[in-house]
Amino acid sequence: MTTSPPARIGDPVEAIDTPALVVDLDAFEHNIEKMAAFTRKAGVRLRPHAKTHKSPAVALKQIAKGAVGQCCQKVGEAEALVRAGVKDVLVSNEVIGLSKLRRLASLAKDATVALCFDAPEGVAQASQAAVEFGVELGGLVEIEIGMKRCGVAPEAAPELARLIEKPPGLKFRGLQAYHGSAQHVQGYEAREALMRDTTAIVRRTAESLAAAGLPCDFVTGAGTGTYSFECASGVWNEIQAGSYAFMDTDYARIGGRNSDRYADFEHSLFVLAGVMSTPASDLAVVDAGLKAFSMEKGAPWVHGIDGAEVVGVSDEHGKVKFAPGARRLNLGERVMLIPGHCDPTINLHDWYVGIRNGRVEALWPIAARGASR
Amino acid sequence: MTTSPPARIGDPVEAIDTPALVVDLDAFEHNIEKMAAFTRKAGVRLRPHAKTHKSPAVALKQIAKGAVGQCCQKVGEAEALVRAGVKDVLVSNEVIGLSKLRRLASLAKDATVALCFDAPEGVAQASQAAVEFGVELGGLVEIEIGMKRCGVAPEAAPELARLIEKPPGLKFRGLQAYHGSAQHVQGYEAREALMRDTTAIVRRTAESLAAAGLPCDFVTGAGTGTYSFECASGVWNEIQAGSYAFMDTDYARIGGRNSDRYADFEHSLFVLAGVMSTPASDLAVVDAGLKAFSMEKGAPWVHGIDGAEVVGVSDEHGKVKFAPGARRLNLGERVMLIPGHCDPTINLHDWYVGIRNGRVEALWPIAARGASR
Repeated sequence: MTTSPPARIGDPVEAIDTPALVVDLDAFEHNIEKMAAFTRKAGVRLRPHAKTHKSPAVALKQIAKGAVGQCCQKVGEAEALVRAGVKDVLVSNEVIGLSKLRRLASLAKDATVALCFDAPEGVAQASQAAVEFGVELGGLVEIEIGMKRCGVAPEAAPELARLIEKPPGLKFRGLQAYHGSAQHVQGYEAREALMRDTTAIVRRTAESLAAAGLPCDFVTGAGTGTYSFECASGVWNEIQAGSYAFMDTDYARIGGRNSDRYADFEHSLFVLAGVMSTPASDLAVVDAGLKAFSMEKGAPWVHGIDGAEVVGVSDEHGKVKFAPGARRLNLGERVMLIPGHCDPTINLHDWYVGIRNGRVEALWPIAARGASR
Repeated sequence: MTTSPPARIGDPVEAIDTPALVVDLDAFEHNIEKMAAFTRKAGVRLRPHAKTHKSPAVALKQIAKGAVGQCCQKVGEAEALVRAGVKDVLVSNEVIGLSKLRRLASLAKDATVALCFDAPEGVAQASQAAVEFGVELGGLVEIEIGMKRCGVAPEAAPELARLIEKPPGLKFRGLQAYHGSAQHVQGYEAREALMRDTTAIVRRTAESLAAAGLPCDFVTGAGTGTYSFECASGVWNEIQAGSYAFMDTDYARIGGRNSDRYADFEHSLFVLAGVMSTPASDLAVVDAGLKAFSMEKGAPWVHGIDGAEVVGVSDEHGKVKFAPGARRLNLGERVMLIPGHCDPTINLHDWYVGIRNGRVEALWPIAARGASR
C-alpha cells in the first residue's frame, strides 16, 4: 500500500523522515550520462532495465539522455512504464499464461512491445493474445549462456525463431543473451575471460540465424558488471544494464580494472536511517532493517564514517558498531547506508527522495514497486 | 504503490495470478485459536505483533479471538491499525523525533497507546507531544535481556521508570522484555535453559520496580519460539508473538520438544508461484524471486513435493530442482513455496489471498506494507 512521501520538495535533508530511500541527484545524473555516452560512442543502443528502478520517472530521464526504451522483467512493470509514456518496452523474460499475455498485448496499442520465448507453448499463447487485440508483439529467443536459468540452448535458437516468425501477431526480432551470473564474478579479468567465451557462442548463434534467413534486429543483454565487454564485442547491439544508475555494495565489491573496487559508476542510492538508541559507547541502533534494505547480498555499508560497520540487522533495526577512534553517532542523528543489492531494496520503498545541495529537489514515485505479476 | 489483487473472491485457486501471497485459512484459524486458547489457559494477555502481518484485517481477527490489542514496531503500523479500529496499541520500540511522536499522540485520541523508552531524551520528547495533543501515552522501559539491541540494563530500569512517571502526558506502565535472538536458538531445551536465566533477570527487575513504588502493569515480550516459557514463568503477563499465525521455514527448523521440527503451529503462509520455464528435465523456473519472498533466512521450501528444492533465486526467478524420482512441474503449473522468514516476505506484498476448499474466500489488504516510518 502506498505510504506518504518521507519529505516535501524544498525540505532540508535534515527534515527527511527516516528510513527513506535517497538518491544523490548529482551522482545519479553522472551515472546515466556516463552510460549513455559510453553506449553512444560504442554504437550500441541503451535499453536500461526497469526491474532495478521500478519507476517511470527514472525511465523517462534515461530516455531523455538517449536510451531507446526500457527492459522489464514483468508485465506489471511494463504496464507502469507504458502508462507513463514509455514507447518501447522489452520484457526480457518469458511470459506464461493468457491473462498476462493479454495485458501485454493491450500495452502494444500504445507502445512497441517485445517479449522472450524459450518454449513453443509460450509462442502459441502470445500469438493468440496479439491476434485478439489486433497488435504485433516482438519475439526474442532467449538463449542460455551460462546463467542456467531460462533460455534454450544456442543451437536450438533457429528452430524456435522459425516458430515465432510463423503465427500471426508475432514477429521474430532477435536474441535475448544475458549472462546474469557473469555480472557478479570477482575480478575484471575473470569477467572479461568469461564474456570472451560467451561472445563466441552468441556470435555463432546470431550467424546461424542469419544463415537460416532469420536475421536478428536485436542481440540484447548485458548488465552493469559486463556492459563494456558486450559493447566492445561487435555482437550485441543493445545493452540492458540497470544497476549502473544507483550501484550497491555487491557491484562495488566485484573489482574493476587494476582495482579491488569496481568504480565505473558512483553510489547514488542510499537508505537514510535515524539513530533510535545508543545502548553502548561503541554501538548505535538505527531505524532501518530488513524492511528498508534487502540482506541477501550482505549488510549495507555505512557511508562517510570510517570504522563504522553494520553488524546486525533485524526487521526494523540495524546495529552500527564503531571501531576505536571512529566518529560515533548520537541519538537522533542520521546516517546514509549503501544497500547490498539495489533492486530488491528499491522494491521495498514507495518513493525516491532526490537530494542536491542539502535540499530535497525531487520525489519520484516507485510506481512499479511490488509489480511482480 | 498498491498493486491490483491477484484474484477475485470466489475464484478457484487455479485462477490466482502468480506470484501471490496465499493464506490457508483453515491453518491460519487453527493457529490463532490455538495461541488464544494457550494464553487464556496460562492467564496471560495476548498482544500479537503486527510487524509480522502488517494488516488490520488480521489484527481484528486476532482480537475477535481474545487478543487484547496489537504490538507494532513503527508509528506507521500503529496508524494503519488504529485507523481500522484497533483500540489498544503498543509500539514495542523506541520512537525518536517530535514528528513521529506527534503522529503517535494523535492516535491516542482514538486508542490506548504506549511506547518504549531506553533513554531520557525520548521521554522528554514524548511528553511534549502528548501535552500538545492533550493525551496520555503509556511508557514502558525496554530492558536489554540478551538481544544486544535497544534497551537499558535491567538494573537501570527504576531510574528510567521514575523519569517516565514524572512529566505530564506520560504514565509508566511496565517493562518491555523481549529476547529476540532466543526465538531462533536451535533446540527446545536450549531455548528453555536460556529463558530460565532470562526469567530470573526479568523477575528481579520487576521486583525492584515494585520496591521503588513503580509496579508494572505490563511485563510484556515473548515470540513464537519461546512463548510457552514466558507463559509459564509467572513473570510475563503479556505475550507479543506474531509469526505463530503463519510460520516459516526458519521457525520450523528451530526444533520442538523431542523433535527436529518445531510444529506448535501449522504453515498457513505460502507464496504461490507459476512455472515459466522448464529448461531441463530436472529443473523448473518459477516466477517468484527476491521480490516475492525474502532470502536472509534461506530459500523457501517447496510445499507438497518430496525431492523438490529451490536451488537458486534471483530478482524474479526461482529455480526448482527435482531429485531423481520426484514429481516434476510442467510449464504453467503452480507450486506453493513456504517462505524462509514470514515478516519481510509479507512486507513485499499488497494482498493476502485467503483460500479454503480450493477457492478464494478472502482478500485482505496488507495496509501497513512499507510502513517503516
